[in-house]
Amino acid sequence: MAADSVASFSDGGRPLVIDGLQYCNWSPEIFEDMRAGGIACVHATICYWENLRETIANVTAWHRRFERHADRLLHVRTAADVRRARAEGKTGIVFGAQNCSPIEDDVGLVRVVHDLGLRFMQLSYNNQSLLATGCYEAEDPGLTRMGRQVVKEMNRVGLVVDMSHSAERSTLEAIDCSERPIAITHANPAFWHPAPRNKSDAVLKALAESGGMLGLSLYPHHLKDGSDCTLESFCEMAARTAELMGAAHIGLGSDLCQGQPDSVVAWMRGGRWTRELDYGEGSAQATGFPKQPGWFASNRDFANVAEGLRAAGFSGGEVAGIMGANWLAFFERSFAPAAA
Amino acid sequence: MAADSVASFSDGGRPLVIDGLQYCNWSPEIFEDMRAGGIACVHATICYWENLRETIANVTAWHRRFERHADRLLHVRTAADVRRARAEGKTGIVFGAQNCSPIEDDVGLVRVVHDLGLRFMQLSYNNQSLLATGCYEAEDPGLTRMGRQVVKEMNRVGLVVDMSHSAERSTLEAIDCSERPIAITHANPAFWHPAPRNKSDAVLKALAESGGMLGLSLYPHHLKDGSDCTLESFCEMAARTAELMGAAHIGLGSDLCQGQPDSVVAWMRGGRWTRELDYGEGSAQATGFPKQPGWFASNRDFANVAEGLRAAGFSGGEVAGIMGANWLAFFERSFAPAAA
Repeated sequence: MAADSVASFSDGGRPLVIDGLQYCNWSPEIFEDMRAGGIACVHATICYWENLRETIANVTAWHRRFERHADRLLHVRTAADVRRARAEGKTGIVFGAQNCSPIEDDVGLVRVVHDLGLRFMQLSYNNQSLLATGCYEAEDPGLTRMGRQVVKEMNRVGLVVDMSHSAERSTLEAIDCSERPIAITHANPAFWHPAPRNKSDAVLKALAESGGMLGLSLYPHHLKDGSDCTLESFCEMAARTAELMGAAHIGLGSDLCQGQPDSVVAWMRGGRWTRELDYGEGSAQATGFPKQPGWFASNRDFANVAEGLRAAGFSGGEVAGIMGANWLAFFERSFAPAAA
Repeated sequence: MAADSVASFSDGGRPLVIDGLQYCNWSPEIFEDMRAGGIACVHATICYWENLRETIANVTAWHRRFERHADRLLHVRTAADVRRARAEGKTGIVFGAQNCSPIEDDVGLVRVVHDLGLRFMQLSYNNQSLLATGCYEAEDPGLTRMGRQVVKEMNRVGLVVDMSHSAERSTLEAIDCSERPIAITHANPAFWHPAPRNKSDAVLKALAESGGMLGLSLYPHHLKDGSDCTLESFCEMAARTAELMGAAHIGLGSDLCQGQPDSVVAWMRGGRWTRELDYGEGSAQATGFPKQPGWFASNRDFANVAEGLRAAGFSGGEVAGIMGANWLAFFERSFAPAAA
């Protein structure tokens, strides 16, 4: 991306880039990619199936990374931390969980995980949870009794409800039940690519009307034509999504799993719930991580997306919003406890 | 009960009494009541909401009781252990869980809890679990993806599926999905008292047709007229249930909570899932344990039930079956691993 177009969607000469979801095999090389890519903040998954104790082990692993890479990384608990990361040329990391397993069966743990820095929590991953239904279940009864209690508590403490992997009815009920806007941090519209993980027009409209955010995914299983998806097709989809939701409700949530071995996707899919193999979005013929499109292979490639969005007709301000400013505004509204 | 009528339903002069569920505030006094009542075996709840570690703490508490009261108690892992308890004049204790919380999110823990002595496990308590739906949820989507995996593993290791607190569709699907007969260890027919915890004719018929067992409950919230329920009404209900299911599929599951303080029923209902009060089967006006009917107040009162069943027209053999022989035959078929 040319320097002048970068300047056009930034507020200080550098673009503000926030990625609404990643689960990379974190390493100094990836942290360097993030700095080179000018990324102010990444929502990093710290849990798929981990219980509280296991999630805390992932938190302490991040504490060690923050200490060892203090020149590059910064722990984000508030929107102000993102602005500080940007000012210092670092990448802020905000913790999120792709499942409600960290709170186990205890509504009291919502506040505990918020205290530990968690700012996003999915009410379910692919399966039925104690709170809501995942998108691979045959039936979706909506939010459970505990789910309604937990949403209320998440609203109170400032933990964002994320329904990225949840099923349709559960998602609509979460939007309705939550008194604060929710997020779908990483998914695409089903009108573009009707994968089980992508979202209906009804969900996207309700999400936008309630003040929520959609992070557009760059994970090949969520892309039309998969690994062969073109930047033009992706950005055209973004334009159609903006017509449906309004550009202010869209960000990125790349779902980038840079450097992860295939054993990790097996854990994501199978957890501990089955003795049989579950291929999730893959198949017996393609069990591992799918190959990223060439135009989005690493944390260095966000500028390609910004260029593509401009080419698809978004204004400079809209591109700035989608690349990061919309997420920052959402963080500002979402991460603090509710007013008493 | 007169000695001659006792002899009429026993195979050796003493009746065989098995109670399909209790959760007493275990004490030497209650163990003495059980011996005085001639009880060969009690299915004792060791878990409502406890996770694996907490359930194991309850197991080790029972280990200490078995050691301290070796003259009165015996740990039951097989039907043969019940016969030994009966021969030695002791009460056998078989462990069960009223929730799937001991296996947390791990199908691999099914074998572990069986190794620890668990022989019954409910797929859900009152709420949605990872496996199935409880009877207090607004919606019941049936068995989940994990639920189907866990039922298969329970069948394999010899852990009985118990649907006492589960909702209708989940219960019917468990009966259908399980390759071995299941149990409803403590509930009554809804035709007699339409409480959310009691079971429809459809469930009871499917349970009997699949070789399963119903344990009739003596917990006042499951009884017509509650604490004022008469022995005659209860035994008349048993007779109508036998017409529906066949007397061989009926036993007792008293749900006796002898000596428990009201704080325990608050835990049963609220667990850790809500910050608000949940009254379960009770109400804001009656939050605690309900008062038992006078004819079934303790472990000394099983003879009253046997007498009542005779008076309601059951044959001596049928009474013997309901009082314990039917459960013993079910244990014989159910507690061992499936043939390879």
